[in-house]
Amino acid sequence: MRTSPSLLSLTIDSAVLNLSNIADLSPLPDHIVIDLFLRTLRAGKLTERVLKLFIDTGKDEVFSLIQALNIRVTLTPVLPTTIKDDEVDIVIGALRSDLTTFMNEWRPMFSRFHLIIVKDPDLKEELKIPEGFNLDVYGKPDIDQVVGSSTSILFSGYSCRYFGYLVSRKKYIISVDDDCLPARDPKGFLVDAVAQHIRNLTNPATPFFFNTLYDPYAEGADFVRGYPFSLRGGVKCALSCGLWLNLADHDAPTQALKARQRNSRYVDAVMTVPAGSLIPISGINIAFEREAVGPALVPALKLAGEGKCRWETMEDIWSGLCVKVVCDHLGLGVKTGLPYIWRTDRGDPIASLKKEWEGVKLMEEVIPFFQSVRLPREATTVEECIVEVANAVKERLGSMDPVFARASKAMLDWIKLWQSVGSSSSRSSAV
Amino acid sequence: MRTSPSLLSLTIDSAVLNLSNIADLSPLPDHIVIDLFLRTLRAGKLTERVLKLFIDTGKDEVFSLIQALNIRVTLTPVLPTTIKDDEVDIVIGALRSDLTTFMNEWRPMFSRFHLIIVKDPDLKEELKIPEGFNLDVYGKPDIDQVVGSSTSILFSGYSCRYFGYLVSRKKYIISVDDDCLPARDPKGFLVDAVAQHIRNLTNPATPFFFNTLYDPYAEGADFVRGYPFSLRGGVKCALSCGLWLNLADHDAPTQALKARQRNSRYVDAVMTVPAGSLIPISGINIAFEREAVGPALVPALKLAGEGKCRWETMEDIWSGLCVKVVCDHLGLGVKTGLPYIWRTDRGDPIASLKKEWEGVKLMEEVIPFFQSVRLPREATTVEECIVEVANAVKERLGSMDPVFARASKAMLDWIKLWQSVGSSSSRSSAV
Repeated sequence: MRTSPSLLSLTIDSAVLNLSNIADLSPLPDHIVIDLFLRTLRAGKLTERVLKLFIDTGKDEVFSLIQALNIRVTLTPVLPTTIKDDEVDIVIGALRSDLTTFMNEWRPMFSRFHLIIVKDPDLKEELKIPEGFNLDVYGKPDIDQVVGSSTSILFSGYSCRYFGYLVSRKKYIISVDDDCLPARDPKGFLVDAVAQHIRNLTNPATPFFFNTLYDPYAEGADFVRGYPFSLRGGVKCALSCGLWLNLADHDAPTQALKARQRNSRYVDAVMTVPAGSLIPISGINIAFEREAVGPALVPALKLAGEGKCRWETMEDIWSGLCVKVVCDHLGLGVKTGLPYIWRTDRGDPIASLKKEWEGVKLMEEVIPFFQSVRLPREATTVEECIVEVANAVKERLGSMDPVFARASKAMLDWIKLWQSVGSSSSRSSAV
Repeated sequence: MRTSPSLLSLTIDSAVLNLSNIADLSPLPDHIVIDLFLRTLRAGKLTERVLKLFIDTGKDEVFSLIQALNIRVTLTPVLPTTIKDDEVDIVIGALRSDLTTFMNEWRPMFSRFHLIIVKDPDLKEELKIPEGFNLDVYGKPDIDQVVGSSTSILFSGYSCRYFGYLVSRKKYIISVDDDCLPARDPKGFLVDAVAQHIRNLTNPATPFFFNTLYDPYAEGADFVRGYPFSLRGGVKCALSCGLWLNLADHDAPTQALKARQRNSRYVDAVMTVPAGSLIPISGINIAFEREAVGPALVPALKLAGEGKCRWETMEDIWSGLCVKVVCDHLGLGVKTGLPYIWRTDRGDPIASLKKEWEGVKLMEEVIPFFQSVRLPREATTVEECIVEVANAVKERLGSMDPVFARASKAMLDWIKLWQSVGSSSSRSSAV
């Protein structure tokens, strides 16, 4: 049973064959654009140019279809013009040898920047890295040569990337775990995590009063009624923490309990974490101004049974607490939210459970410590602040668990290393 | 030019005529579902039942089409079962006489609850309210009778709703400005603001540590790695602040400067405002547990030239600062984010500019005051806390501007009124 084709239907079919002569589809009603799109697709007429014609309509349902049909849209990264490509290092800690998929998926965002790849010293195999990147690779011999054996810092596992932070000479660093791929936003477009991190870092942060409409510097946003004008200028943003789609960053007990839970909620927001409020900063997807807070990203809290799964580690949480306390003291900002990355599965949460409880238990001592630590007014550089925190750790937590004494020692060693390797920041340009 | 119909095309056409026999469309590929949907529509076969069949596929592009084609989906509100309908009062301050559209648009969400409508004492005309609601209307005579003439509190303009807070005997209050309509989420569904506010209030808040994945109690969410287990229980949420699509809640200068800017960013998140961090709480779209913090919502800061546009007022910002300071002191939580409402245009921002600068300038004194005010340990009820804040206002701000002395007096009068009208909370059930 089939009704004869309508005039509209015939017109659309004719349009499919004449798309190359059409300049703008947006005046058409939505359902006709959708129909035209589907028929174009079935007729095999969807070229890059024609696809652009449909995208340019700005119609949501076109984006939905592109996403649903998994049509790859070529990405044209739009970077803020205030910074130059050579002011950025992308630091990757390689915990597995084959980086082919990782690098190829990130190629559109990574290829214009210099990369520092640090191989986990525990990894025996050769790294497999595809061609076409501007990069330096560091391995165990390089770490031994630069750091020597007279330090308490262990650059193994996820901590290997901190060696990259140490040897970088760039203003900004972006770091993404090697089990992460670019995410897609709800419209199906690839998220340029690099561009978003740079946007977060180069726009001011507003830690001293909460803006209910999120980042006031985002396009189409502003400060809401009641926000004091004197605070609208904001302060320098030192750290940008991105989030995760698919596998969220849970601890091992949560991961084991909710093994099948995946994060699919894309929250289209960036926000400044208020001053005085602590946050569990994850090292999976972060960016920071190395010249402003580099020394505060310190590999210090090494768990005894730490393995090669994120949920087994606490090194980034500890480092994040240090950064936040230092930023609050120096009047710098920390942001969280966009960009998302897509986190793929790795490891067995049940097997990690036994190890993880150590880290989970430590947090019950760690958080109250960081919530109450106060830095003296005389500490005006990041290095001085970290030394103060390290001394307080030794004094207040040192006797509780040997892991804290080691952390304190590692922090002091890290500052010495940072200064001797020559990355030392001059006086902080804090506001 | 037309190719002959494909087998697929014929099959879809046949399916359109047999939709009543199909139980589940979700196994079909997305583009076929879309095609089927469009053909069903054109064939005039889209009934409620068939629409549900398409919605049940859960496919994003179906939602996009429903939104694009402006198909009205019947709303079935899902409320948490922990509270009863008669525990809620919806309080509406009527600043204009014709509430027909407002009430009819909100009918699906409002009709099961009791409403308190307070007519702005300055409004001369009769209220027009459609049939079919369970409500009480209060006007100037009622206010005069209950409050008398011996008070400094003015219940005119936006402040009229506070009279509703005073006479309510319910546990929860929800209040929405009368120039707001229900919003739609990005999938085109009407947002049930009442249900979301109740969800916010009945789930714990987490003010003592930041959760990067937003509300850990939302569906599909949890606490992230590093979040101390001892803080995961959270505290009682006393106040829920919703947001605004279309016309954002800017002050008059911003509104005048960006007269055409509209907020279209739907951020799918609820978050607890961290303890110690202040926030410009807007009274446009809020809900609170009256029994927990009712007396802290106080109409105290009345600007000299205050008019009937939100951007000319600061009474809600002041009240919000009081609530937040009290909540931080008593260990209660404040949330912001979902639900959104749709805010329609009213007033002339340019004309308001002159009046508004007063409020904008006052904020430069008001925020530092609230950031530094400390309540004594002995203040354990909301009433005691507000009296303490009122005394501090008189002492520290009283000499700066007469508006502050009046605010202090109004706060003290409000507490007396709250106690005499019999709404006084027993000892706060703060955690």
